[in-house]
Amino acid sequence: MASKQIKTNDKHVKNLANIVGGSRSILYHKEDLLAYDSDGFTLHRHLPKAVVFPKDTQEVAKLVKYCSDNQLPFLARGAGTGLSGGAIPMNGEVIISMVRMKRLLSVNLENRRAVVEPGFVNLKLTNSISDKGYYYAPDPSSQYCCTIGGNVAENAGGAHCLKYGVTTNHILGLEVVLPNGEIIEIGENGIPDAPGYDLLGLITGSEGTLGIVTKITVRILKNPEAKQTVLAYFDNVTDGSQAVSDIISAGIVPAALEMMDKTAIEGVEAAAFPVGHPKDIEAVLLIEVDGISAGIAEQINQILEVCNNRNVREVKVAQDELERGRWWANRKTGFGAMGAISADYLVQDGVIPRSKLPQVLNRINQISEEAGLRIANIFHAGDGNLHPLVLFDARIPGESEKALAAGSACLQACADVGGTITGEHGVGIEKREEMRFVFTDEEINAQTDIREVFNPNNLLNAGKLFPMPGRCVEIKKELKEKEAAIS
Amino acid sequence: MASKQIKTNDKHVKNLANIVGGSRSILYHKEDLLAYDSDGFTLHRHLPKAVVFPKDTQEVAKLVKYCSDNQLPFLARGAGTGLSGGAIPMNGEVIISMVRMKRLLSVNLENRRAVVEPGFVNLKLTNSISDKGYYYAPDPSSQYCCTIGGNVAENAGGAHCLKYGVTTNHILGLEVVLPNGEIIEIGENGIPDAPGYDLLGLITGSEGTLGIVTKITVRILKNPEAKQTVLAYFDNVTDGSQAVSDIISAGIVPAALEMMDKTAIEGVEAAAFPVGHPKDIEAVLLIEVDGISAGIAEQINQILEVCNNRNVREVKVAQDELERGRWWANRKTGFGAMGAISADYLVQDGVIPRSKLPQVLNRINQISEEAGLRIANIFHAGDGNLHPLVLFDARIPGESEKALAAGSACLQACADVGGTITGEHGVGIEKREEMRFVFTDEEINAQTDIREVFNPNNLLNAGKLFPMPGRCVEIKKELKEKEAAIS
Repeated sequence: MASKQIKTNDKHVKNLANIVGGSRSILYHKEDLLAYDSDGFTLHRHLPKAVVFPKDTQEVAKLVKYCSDNQLPFLARGAGTGLSGGAIPMNGEVIISMVRMKRLLSVNLENRRAVVEPGFVNLKLTNSISDKGYYYAPDPSSQYCCTIGGNVAENAGGAHCLKYGVTTNHILGLEVVLPNGEIIEIGENGIPDAPGYDLLGLITGSEGTLGIVTKITVRILKNPEAKQTVLAYFDNVTDGSQAVSDIISAGIVPAALEMMDKTAIEGVEAAAFPVGHPKDIEAVLLIEVDGISAGIAEQINQILEVCNNRNVREVKVAQDELERGRWWANRKTGFGAMGAISADYLVQDGVIPRSKLPQVLNRINQISEEAGLRIANIFHAGDGNLHPLVLFDARIPGESEKALAAGSACLQACADVGGTITGEHGVGIEKREEMRFVFTDEEINAQTDIREVFNPNNLLNAGKLFPMPGRCVEIKKELKEKEAAIS
Repeated sequence: MASKQIKTNDKHVKNLANIVGGSRSILYHKEDLLAYDSDGFTLHRHLPKAVVFPKDTQEVAKLVKYCSDNQLPFLARGAGTGLSGGAIPMNGEVIISMVRMKRLLSVNLENRRAVVEPGFVNLKLTNSISDKGYYYAPDPSSQYCCTIGGNVAENAGGAHCLKYGVTTNHILGLEVVLPNGEIIEIGENGIPDAPGYDLLGLITGSEGTLGIVTKITVRILKNPEAKQTVLAYFDNVTDGSQAVSDIISAGIVPAALEMMDKTAIEGVEAAAFPVGHPKDIEAVLLIEVDGISAGIAEQINQILEVCNNRNVREVKVAQDELERGRWWANRKTGFGAMGAISADYLVQDGVIPRSKLPQVLNRINQISEEAGLRIANIFHAGDGNLHPLVLFDARIPGESEKALAAGSACLQACADVGGTITGEHGVGIEKREEMRFVFTDEEINAQTDIREVFNPNNLLNAGKLFPMPGRCVEIKKELKEKEAAIS
């Protein structure tokens, strides 16, 4: 196979190309780099220095060591579906793309685990084991294309995380390349309380700032014996919210408990997967229960009773897998569906105690009126994870800024009732400053101090996750100045 | 109230006494300190410098700051029931006892959480909310006296952790006094994927080496609608182990799945809560399922069928809550029961993949023969968490050492099959060196580097959890030497 020639004088690009085996595994021309200037959060755009495509852990370690030795900023990228800008090369980073490391390495049904490379696509795992009766639980809406490595970085959630937990609850082990190029393995085959500090938990959700994950051991689950899905329409949001609380209070833990408001319904009905939701209702709930067959019917009856007690207008149970699939497609493509009713949209991701739902939804309405922008709400109601979608038109000067401010105000509303600023999308670039809504300086320092340990020169994904340089950076500067003064 | 006088010339003792309001809140005489020279792991004994009893977070912060400013080693202690020596004052520490901080601060049923002080006893939480239909899930066998603060430090488990997870899965927020005296709050009311690094996970299970927890927000659960408990006797351990695997493979997730072997049965039947287990059987399984009533009977039938297919000698379902309670008392007092058949015993705590149960139990038998010491096995079979109990007599010279060596060999056997060295008891002093069975130097360094960030002078609970000083300690020494050379 004839390899293309590297056409640049940049010695770093040449050296990086050599590490990954030549010009076929690196992009460095501006026209190629444009595709990597952003991720799912498109309000910031920066060009990377280059994009490299390693094929294995050793190559990742060499790339990292090279960047570290040469003080080149770098970051890892999966499918680029992140919604908070975690993979945007703000400092002209070398992007280490994980898409070639996409193998399913092993499946162990007896001990319920699978080992994957980080570029392996989320949904492919379930597809690979479903014939044996197993699946992988975390199901972000982008699961048909997002990678498990990206899911680990963002601690991704999904509709079924109410019952099954987010990504961190399904990660049993990681191989990680540290920012100095060292390779470590953490997690011991899914031990519930492994010895030592919980590095597994620490690295999961660290948004690519502590290391680059190169191998992942995940928990796989047995398919539930049975599933039933309910759609319930309410004439007002308070009744819908109250039904959510009542279902949980009844002791039912649904596999999923989703809600969409009127504006969201307008969007999903105008997009690719309409299911005929009535246009004049204020809230729809999508409720799924799963488990052993024997208990399902009783739970469904309880749910129907709760909905009736809360003045439901109409409630129905999916008649077959086809209907269930259509309802889920309608919900899972909900964010993109906003494109059918708005030029642009900004997804936010706040979390609140379930009991505060009506109060916060009212406040979001107010914010919408104040900003003069429509806000649709699609959310994981069962675990209080809101996704306000601020609709705007970036072509109108000033409207992007207004949308960002409205999104921020929604997060403030969440923080004000004891909630927080992200449930599953991460902080990234987008919510760095909003970290101050929920953390004091001391609390932020405690975190940036940890980043310092792993990432002392802050070359790996700098400028993400935290609002300001940490304490260690300052101490280090001082020490360096002292040393300089001596020599 | 007349306060006792402090009768010592030690200025630190006087100053510490002043912080906690006088002599009633401090112990410093040798005869008082003797009770604090050890915890549930009694093979090491060291006297503390003093034991102080703060009443609130502010006092803890002042004590910590005082110790830190004066280079006094210190550590926190709950009920002292830990099994790996985590609360033993190896360096003559000032012990900060949390037993006066034992209030239940709030209960929020709607959002399923409670806030407790660290000295609050585990079982009291369930007792305080059971009349409203709720409970706290983690149930270490010592739950009638151990504190939730201690549970957080050790990331304690328990029989029902198979279905419900260990302590870390139930902690939603912590207030922590850092080793420099700063107070931070982490966790935001139980958000599934909180922003920033997972400090909550990092501190939970850090065995008191990163900070002192002063307030804990826990998840509480709704009581399951129904429970059923099964006792099954097997004529050989392999059949029993295979039944364990079969139950899980059938897609049942029991609330608990416990096993005891013949020697363990001999112990529990000779102790305070005998239930009439046949003396000649090789293994007993205690299996509990819970959930909504509708599904329970079917699950029990499946379990009985699995047991029958694996040549069970006898299997029975608890007829009422009284019988269920007796079976559990028999199991939960199992460790202490070994006192009925042996002068001393050493509990070990290894974890293995479920499928390796028969192989590892064979190896433990071999170790027992080689050491000439009986080893009983009581374990959480469902999650592969073994508790080999090495029976010995400390009065016989050399036998303690033999027991320790046999315990260590059991852990090596676990590590050899891809398991690890602790499931729920922690590393403490006991298993520091065994950390090398599962971690490389790089991996241990990554952890001690983190300790450095929180605990830079290693005054807080030094000498626990890791086999050697970390990398940062060395770097720091170097810097100090440099600075010294200058001045």
